[in-house]
Amino acid sequence: MSDPLRIAVAGLGTVGAETLRLIRAQGPLIAARCGRAIEIAAVSARDRNKARPIELTGLSWFDDPAAMAAAPGIDAVVELIGGADGIAKATVEAAIAAGRHVVTANKALLAHHGAALARSAEAAGVALAYEAAVAGGIPIVKALREGLAANRIGRVYGVLNGTCNYILTTMRETGRGFDAVLAEAQDLGYAEADPGFDIDGVDTAHKLAILTALAFGCEIDFGNVHVEGIREVSSLDIAYAEELGYRIKLLGIATRREDGVEQRVHPCMVARDSPIAAVEGVFNGIVAEGDFVGTFMAEGRGAGAGPTASAVVADLMDIARGAVPPTFGVPARDLERPASLPIERHLGSHYIRLMVVDRPGVIADIAAALRDQEISVEAMIQRGRAPDEMVPVVITTHDTEDAAMTRALQRIGALDAVIEPPRRIRIEAL
Amino acid sequence: MSDPLRIAVAGLGTVGAETLRLIRAQGPLIAARCGRAIEIAAVSARDRNKARPIELTGLSWFDDPAAMAAAPGIDAVVELIGGADGIAKATVEAAIAAGRHVVTANKALLAHHGAALARSAEAAGVALAYEAAVAGGIPIVKALREGLAANRIGRVYGVLNGTCNYILTTMRETGRGFDAVLAEAQDLGYAEADPGFDIDGVDTAHKLAILTALAFGCEIDFGNVHVEGIREVSSLDIAYAEELGYRIKLLGIATRREDGVEQRVHPCMVARDSPIAAVEGVFNGIVAEGDFVGTFMAEGRGAGAGPTASAVVADLMDIARGAVPPTFGVPARDLERPASLPIERHLGSHYIRLMVVDRPGVIADIAAALRDQEISVEAMIQRGRAPDEMVPVVITTHDTEDAAMTRALQRIGALDAVIEPPRRIRIEAL
Repeated sequence: MSDPLRIAVAGLGTVGAETLRLIRAQGPLIAARCGRAIEIAAVSARDRNKARPIELTGLSWFDDPAAMAAAPGIDAVVELIGGADGIAKATVEAAIAAGRHVVTANKALLAHHGAALARSAEAAGVALAYEAAVAGGIPIVKALREGLAANRIGRVYGVLNGTCNYILTTMRETGRGFDAVLAEAQDLGYAEADPGFDIDGVDTAHKLAILTALAFGCEIDFGNVHVEGIREVSSLDIAYAEELGYRIKLLGIATRREDGVEQRVHPCMVARDSPIAAVEGVFNGIVAEGDFVGTFMAEGRGAGAGPTASAVVADLMDIARGAVPPTFGVPARDLERPASLPIERHLGSHYIRLMVVDRPGVIADIAAALRDQEISVEAMIQRGRAPDEMVPVVITTHDTEDAAMTRALQRIGALDAVIEPPRRIRIEAL
Repeated sequence: MSDPLRIAVAGLGTVGAETLRLIRAQGPLIAARCGRAIEIAAVSARDRNKARPIELTGLSWFDDPAAMAAAPGIDAVVELIGGADGIAKATVEAAIAAGRHVVTANKALLAHHGAALARSAEAAGVALAYEAAVAGGIPIVKALREGLAANRIGRVYGVLNGTCNYILTTMRETGRGFDAVLAEAQDLGYAEADPGFDIDGVDTAHKLAILTALAFGCEIDFGNVHVEGIREVSSLDIAYAEELGYRIKLLGIATRREDGVEQRVHPCMVARDSPIAAVEGVFNGIVAEGDFVGTFMAEGRGAGAGPTASAVVADLMDIARGAVPPTFGVPARDLERPASLPIERHLGSHYIRLMVVDRPGVIADIAAALRDQEISVEAMIQRGRAPDEMVPVVITTHDTEDAAMTRALQRIGALDAVIEPPRRIRIEAL
């Protein structure tokens, strides 16, 4: 058996601690599967004296993770600090500069600096592995990079944030409103005290930008992801979705078109009997569409200490076996830079909900606004009558350019009889 | 860029032809992702003069695939002949003996001879790759061997045969009987003229035996897979399943217990809202449960030329990149040989359906037979009354040993008032 792979772990929060626990618990299994052991040599965290559920005796301690990354005798550095810049970035850069392999769970770092880091890692001949950064419990990075590698991927999309999916699932199951369910998710530890990163779609966008690069072989382009979150999804919309045969999911969607790549994060209505609709609660699910393989879907836990540690150690095991694949599937210098297609040019159908005063002529005005943008209506629901009172009007449309819908909704929102801002949820054809 | 990987393809049926088409269509993509090209050097098939949808000009032709496998200048041999023995086995053995990597889609060959072939391949230092042999469109071999490699897998199960799943899905959706739907599936090309291999569960058992070895790191033990097919699943049972909140699926299930490994193929009732229940029609789905990752599921097309070719070429791309993993995840000499647990010792709950003559005392006799085997009833459905006529009685039970249920059903089946053999479908807790 070869020498062990000696690793240094930067960051000892729940994931870092679980990674140590996993490596210790599965020692024989890891050695049998890799032909060599993984040995934890050094660790670093902010506070050396903090009580932790793991034994650190015998490990080298570093206050400075970047210094640890460059210290002698380390083969691979595991970065579990987090954050797009600062000490996490410095640690990864130091590791690469010192010729060490890197394993990271840091999606923000990759979304912002993935292209440069991939070039550095490949120039240094080291791995930059990040299975844990996207849907930890789902080995989707490996699936896209290797398992489906014989395919041109046309679209990849997924439920990539467990917090949002838990909130949307619970709203549907209980009929309760967004604010109440968010508060409960915070109590349960499924949502952060400051939930914006999750519920405003940023976390999903980070992961989508990584998937896009991997699936299409192009440079990471996080800046051009269109991002909307779930704050404005109401119980009423969820109830209408059910009635229309849909579920509402926050999806990250990347599509390769002839003229470029489209990256979008926004609430979607998806057919209730589609596989992605069955991804519920804190689970994540990812679908990839390949030209030979057809539709592939994978589902699992997207976050949590166990699934994330599982992904981190899988990457370490690949490195232990000598696998040093290009970061995004093809060498960084060969990554394409396709045009980014703005959301305004997206073609798709829509659900729109208007709160209107029920009086003669309202529907005609709405219909005219749609007609003038050449948007054709698929279905309309207006139930009962309540003269001069507020009623919801729900419309679904055929495919239209996104910008045309935006213009139509501006005109509709300006009507006297429309007394709340129109709600729009894009319908994704799956 | 390195020298191309020169391959020889044995078998030019639909999958063989599609594999050639894929390699030609995706040439630049394959080269970018592997750092080298894949070059088709030689082919072999039964009939050289058969009309085929692919161009063979420029390729060396061999009438004898085993001779091709040993011919000079070949790096890897793709075996797409099929069959557990005969020429397919001879070809794979010849390739290994000549030091060539092997890629095969042949589940029967692996189920019967996987242990010996793995030992030979590892002794020769060549890959024996078989992603295409299990659920072609789902890269589950890679997921189990690498993506989830940091986990001990406790259970792996799946919908592994698209023909059976199409038949069961269509029976449920249309209310039609097994024979009519099978005939339709044959007309549509979803079922073979001789359908036994699929509908009697043999194909599922082959795939399950491979998954078991890979998931648990043990030697293939196809002979100890308990196998039942779907011929006896009736529309009535499917309707009752719906009423009880279940779907009926033909599952292959492997469970690791402290005292051994259980491998079963039989129709199962699974909760209708479980992810595996959502795997419908010709799709395959596989669930793996790991101690750190939790529940992982993957879904895709299990068969067909495109998905199978996608899997074959993914294996070739791994080989082109230099990956030669142990066949079943750990070296063949380290594979365990756990005890095989017979179906009689399986613990689980059951659905049973009896056709009885509706007269006093029948239910008491049935209940006594269950009580005497210490089987406790969870629910019973007997709807309406039809004195002295035949009525269905449906019972679901709590967990019981399989053998106890068999004994109870023998006694129940012998009752005068029970006029058809009792139907039993195991309920799988997911």
